[in-house]
Amino acid sequence: MKLAHVIESQQFTVPMLSELFRLSEEMERIVARGGTRDYSNKIMASLFYANSTRTRFSFESAMSRLGGKVLVTEHAQSFSSDVSGETLEDTIRVVGNYSDVIVLRHNEVGGAARAAKVSVVPVINAGDGKGGQHPTQALLDLYTIYKEIRTIDGVRVAMVGNLAEGRTVRSLAYLLGKFERVRLYFVASPELQMRQDIIDYLTHHNVWFAIENDLSKILPAVDVVYMTRSESSIQPEEAGGTTTERSRYYIDDSMMWLFPQKAIIMHPLPRSNEIAASVDSDPRAAYFRQTKNGIYVRMALLVSVLG
Amino acid sequence: MKLAHVIESQQFTVPMLSELFRLSEEMERIVARGGTRDYSNKIMASLFYANSTRTRFSFESAMSRLGGKVLVTEHAQSFSSDVSGETLEDTIRVVGNYSDVIVLRHNEVGGAARAAKVSVVPVINAGDGKGGQHPTQALLDLYTIYKEIRTIDGVRVAMVGNLAEGRTVRSLAYLLGKFERVRLYFVASPELQMRQDIIDYLTHHNVWFAIENDLSKILPAVDVVYMTRSESSIQPEEAGGTTTERSRYYIDDSMMWLFPQKAIIMHPLPRSNEIAASVDSDPRAAYFRQTKNGIYVRMALLVSVLG
Amino acid sequence: MKLAHVIESQQFTVPMLSELFRLSEEMERIVARGGTRDYSNKIMASLFYANSTRTRFSFESAMSRLGGKVLVTEHAQSFSSDVSGETLEDTIRVVGNYSDVIVLRHNEVGGAARAAKVSVVPVINAGDGKGGQHPTQALLDLYTIYKEIRTIDGVRVAMVGNLAEGRTVRSLAYLLGKFERVRLYFVASPELQMRQDIIDYLTHHNVWFAIENDLSKILPAVDVVYMTRSESSIQPEEAGGTTTERSRYYIDDSMMWLFPQKAIIMHPLPRSNEIAASVDSDPRAAYFRQTKNGIYVRMALLVSVLG
Repeated sequence: MKLAHVIESQQFTVPMLSELFRLSEEMERIVARGGTRDYSNKIMASLFYANSTRTRFSFESAMSRLGGKVLVTEHAQSFSSDVSGETLEDTIRVVGNYSDVIVLRHNEVGGAARAAKVSVVPVINAGDGKGGQHPTQALLDLYTIYKEIRTIDGVRVAMVGNLAEGRTVRSLAYLLGKFERVRLYFVASPELQMRQDIIDYLTHHNVWFAIENDLSKILPAVDVVYMTRSESSIQPEEAGGTTTERSRYYIDDSMMWLFPQKAIIMHPLPRSNEIAASVDSDPRAAYFRQTKNGIYVRMALLVSVLG
Repeated sequence: MKLAHVIESQQFTVPMLSELFRLSEEMERIVARGGTRDYSNKIMASLFYANSTRTRFSFESAMSRLGGKVLVTEHAQSFSSDVSGETLEDTIRVVGNYSDVIVLRHNEVGGAARAAKVSVVPVINAGDGKGGQHPTQALLDLYTIYKEIRTIDGVRVAMVGNLAEGRTVRSLAYLLGKFERVRLYFVASPELQMRQDIIDYLTHHNVWFAIENDLSKILPAVDVVYMTRSESSIQPEEAGGTTTERSRYYIDDSMMWLFPQKAIIMHPLPRSNEIAASVDSDPRAAYFRQTKNGIYVRMALLVSVLG
Repeated sequence: MKLAHVIESQQFTVPMLSELFRLSEEMERIVARGGTRDYSNKIMASLFYANSTRTRFSFESAMSRLGGKVLVTEHAQSFSSDVSGETLEDTIRVVGNYSDVIVLRHNEVGGAARAAKVSVVPVINAGDGKGGQHPTQALLDLYTIYKEIRTIDGVRVAMVGNLAEGRTVRSLAYLLGKFERVRLYFVASPELQMRQDIIDYLTHHNVWFAIENDLSKILPAVDVVYMTRSESSIQPEEAGGTTTERSRYYIDDSMMWLFPQKAIIMHPLPRSNEIAASVDSDPRAAYFRQTKNGIYVRMALLVSVLG
């Protein structure tokens, strides 16, 4: 699979996802035996307009595992620190002359698409804007389900917490909608439920979903619980309803008794207070493995754009 | 060519420049075929006291293309963050024990020379102070003329914009003055014209130059137009004359009709509003290629100091 | 020697120190002949919660000299930049999935021990908290004495300056106390003398020491003078006694006449005004060599934890 750029989840068809996951598994085997790919003459530029050490480390680790080299800035806006600034387009053209692939975290929705338009090297979107895309997170989430449950067709996924503003659950819902017989449970308080655009998309594509607000009722019936940071950790304490939200969707040992033995708990991290630390040692706690999967998926994406 | 340090443009004679350009072309061929040099056991320290992601990336890309490794700080002043600070000299001695070459961006004129005096490893000046040297920029500018025009002797160059404060044009004028039959046109409003020290230097060395303020009159007669950031982008809006300056020296498609087919437009970047975006696709727009040449010239300089 | 983690000086027995120094000497030989070890598939994460470019560069240089790769952040707190933050434990678990060893600079005493408890990869403490451990500094100090004096048993060491707050001298006194027939001279003004916990430790282990305040009296009788930043450079100017302290313990050329020919001066750097610049060229000035030893010791520690 040769990709020109990685800009949004929508660009991936089901066959492309299959191919990507096959490649990700190959990457995992390479890392497991301590090998690398021959990318020692390739340079990845980490161009971050907004600080996100977690995502940046994941991409840089992936490129390093491939044997490649990395240019790093967490202050990409300093390319335009002069009085009148430089356009994103000019910066991308310059950095494309310094590197073989650009990983871009931009602070405006659509930044990655603008960059791809003028870039002479592949651009990978590492998140653009608050409401924008973060496709590699969605892909690693999907890969985690694929690896842990061994199928995506027919999977039953509960998404829990602040679904209205949760970029990861919105993207994942979108991607899951492409597969067969998927069942989605949206567990949130009414004001934080999944927004109408995703609901419309799922309805239009005949994807089964249910709106719920009681997590304990749903837990026994699903393969995957995808927790997100609760309202309380996103909105300031002053906002009403915070405490209620926090306590409503909290997974501790007692909740785990309700949960099927082969099911998994996912979380994009960082977590706030949605999951008790005591749950971490449960084999069904998949969130740190999910983090590791990010390396393999990003390695596979880098290989796909670098050729 | 073995260089001890790269501190200022003045240290390069014409034969050294020829040798440097030959080496830069060799570097270009190595990169083109995806190769590296065997510098995998060499470490370059990027020691930046002032933020300049563009210059830093260019050096780090060059070192990576050579197969080498990089230590990076954009906050070199933190070496002396303790109450009473550490001298530049002490920091250089320490960093010289960690690396094989130091690329130094210092905030005081003469910083690089001070560093070279005590360093046990080669020092490359990546800019020192506002009015100081930035020799690698001047060298990549000269290399761009050499590559694009295929000669420097006899070349006709217009320098345009804020010549009084433009470090790049001042250094380039100096270097061009070493070659034969060069013709320089300084195009600026009177208050921003090239300063007397460069004028004196050129006069003393019998270099032909002309003081102009009408760009359209000059354009048809030159091989190279070197645009710089206009006054408006350097001085705050409140300063008088800003708008006039901006509109006077602006290259758009209509100006390109006046411009010879084999001539080129250069710009050190970032640009402000001196060149219309529509000009970018014109093959005579050399400013992004100029950026790329920086990699080859810096690779050549690293090879020259590392041996 | 296979180490799980490097958390505190106390974990090293005398046989382990001997083994570490033998390995450090081997590293020095590898670097001297321009070689590397085969760590090209290994990744070290530099996880710095507090800025310390000097220590960070030293570790990164060591990893680069081994042929390995590095992930860098000087803003590790941005892992938890969201409203409610992420625990150190969660961050360590995540970064352990991105790397093969974590070098941690934390801002709380005990941070490294907490990290080691949950980490799936080795953790090396690069300093935790103001009063905490900085074991690799203590080890490189000890290695410097071993290399320069060719023995640690029987060595006579004067520690000078702010001993009360000096982390390096406290750790070094502790480590030296493990060897035979060592003689320690603590040279400080009474209010900055070595604290009771170290005094008790030495007394309990029958280590010879003397409390002094006249440096010139001690100088002729020692093998090593370990200078630390004086009070004046740690406390603000407003604090009383500053100037006195500064002038009391100052080594210049005239002091060097009192100093044995085979003795050495050490300093953890950065120095303030404890040692005159004119002393630097004296072969007994070992402080820059001490810096270089940090590379070899840290290479040896990385090899010991990576296997």
